[in-house]
Amino acid sequence: MRILAISGSLSVASSNTALLRAVALLSPDGVAVDLYEGLGELPHFNPDLDRDLDDPRLPVAVCDLRGRVGAAHVLLISSPEYAHGVPGSLKNALDWLVGGSEMPGKSVALVNASAHAVHAQASLSETLRTMSAALVPGSPFPVRLPGRERRPEELAQDPETRADLRALLAVLVEAGRAPPTFPSVDGLDGNA
Amino acid sequence: MRILAISGSLSVASSNTALLRAVALLSPDGVAVDLYEGLGELPHFNPDLDRDLDDPRLPVAVCDLRGRVGAAHVLLISSPEYAHGVPGSLKNALDWLVGGSEMPGKSVALVNASAHAVHAQASLSETLRTMSAALVPGSPFPVRLPGRERRPEELAQDPETRADLRALLAVLVEAGRAPPTFPSVDGLDGNA
Repeated sequence: MRILAISGSLSVASSNTALLRAVALLSPDGVAVDLYEGLGELPHFNPDLDRDLDDPRLPVAVCDLRGRVGAAHVLLISSPEYAHGVPGSLKNALDWLVGGSEMPGKSVALVNASAHAVHAQASLSETLRTMSAALVPGSPFPVRLPGRERRPEELAQDPETRADLRALLAVLVEAGRAPPTFPSVDGLDGNA
Repeated sequence: MRILAISGSLSVASSNTALLRAVALLSPDGVAVDLYEGLGELPHFNPDLDRDLDDPRLPVAVCDLRGRVGAAHVLLISSPEYAHGVPGSLKNALDWLVGGSEMPGKSVALVNASAHAVHAQASLSETLRTMSAALVPGSPFPVRLPGRERRPEELAQDPETRADLRALLAVLVEAGRAPPTFPSVDGLDGNA
């Protein structure tokens, strides 16, 4: 089973990225957690450049993103909130996935390591539902982080964080085993 | 008076961009409407690269954006909605402005040329308020567009569109004359 983990922060010291690396450290046998590291390399979404996956004019970084999403059984997104909104770079990645065939029915789980960051999680959920993704029930999953230590190894060893991440992994494995669902497509339009 | 117009779409045929160009065509004497064309050149926001305006390590495109915003009396934003959310590239520009000193108290007006696109407008408003911008009352201003013709010259000549844009310009000029207000700063934090 393949889980594609996407962090909404490009900061080297991001606690969201560290949390996803800790998930990878704790993953059971047979479950591969791959951290997507191409967010910062994606071009800005432009409808004029949005093409089918087999069209060589599709930007290479977008082709890579769609391929990784298509190959994953579950997506796991951990994101900060910037000014009560989704980080632009993360939303940009989702904008590139709207036109592809990878997201409808794809299981997507959100984690939230910051209890007060409610706006970005609500916005992400609305966008993912609009893209016909299958939001894993329980999203956003709260994860307790230790006060200071934010390296992946420490997160994986902290008793509370480890318990939360193991519980999350169990839910993800369950979601990845379930047959994909295809919610009704709604509200994808909008003027350009 | 200087109005900085920002389109949320990078499409060459964008009706949002055409609408802003039509605003420029209709602007009265003494009012300069400049279209920001750097959205696609901005790097993805990274807190590690976010520095003061006079720090030479701040990316040049960000320095240019902050300079333009700082020099404008009013910002005018016209944006499409992508999957019930703000286009990532537009939010990315706002993410770069969170750390600057240009937005608090700055008058910002939103226009909406697509009546059903309510989610992106609500998200943009929430983010702008969180950045302590002075959202021009009445935002988002609805603008009626003709059915087919979306070139700036035609928008400026269409009776309904022209009437809406002239009324908008009157509000913008009024907002640009008023002294800046500084709403209370709230909720800018969030884990990275």
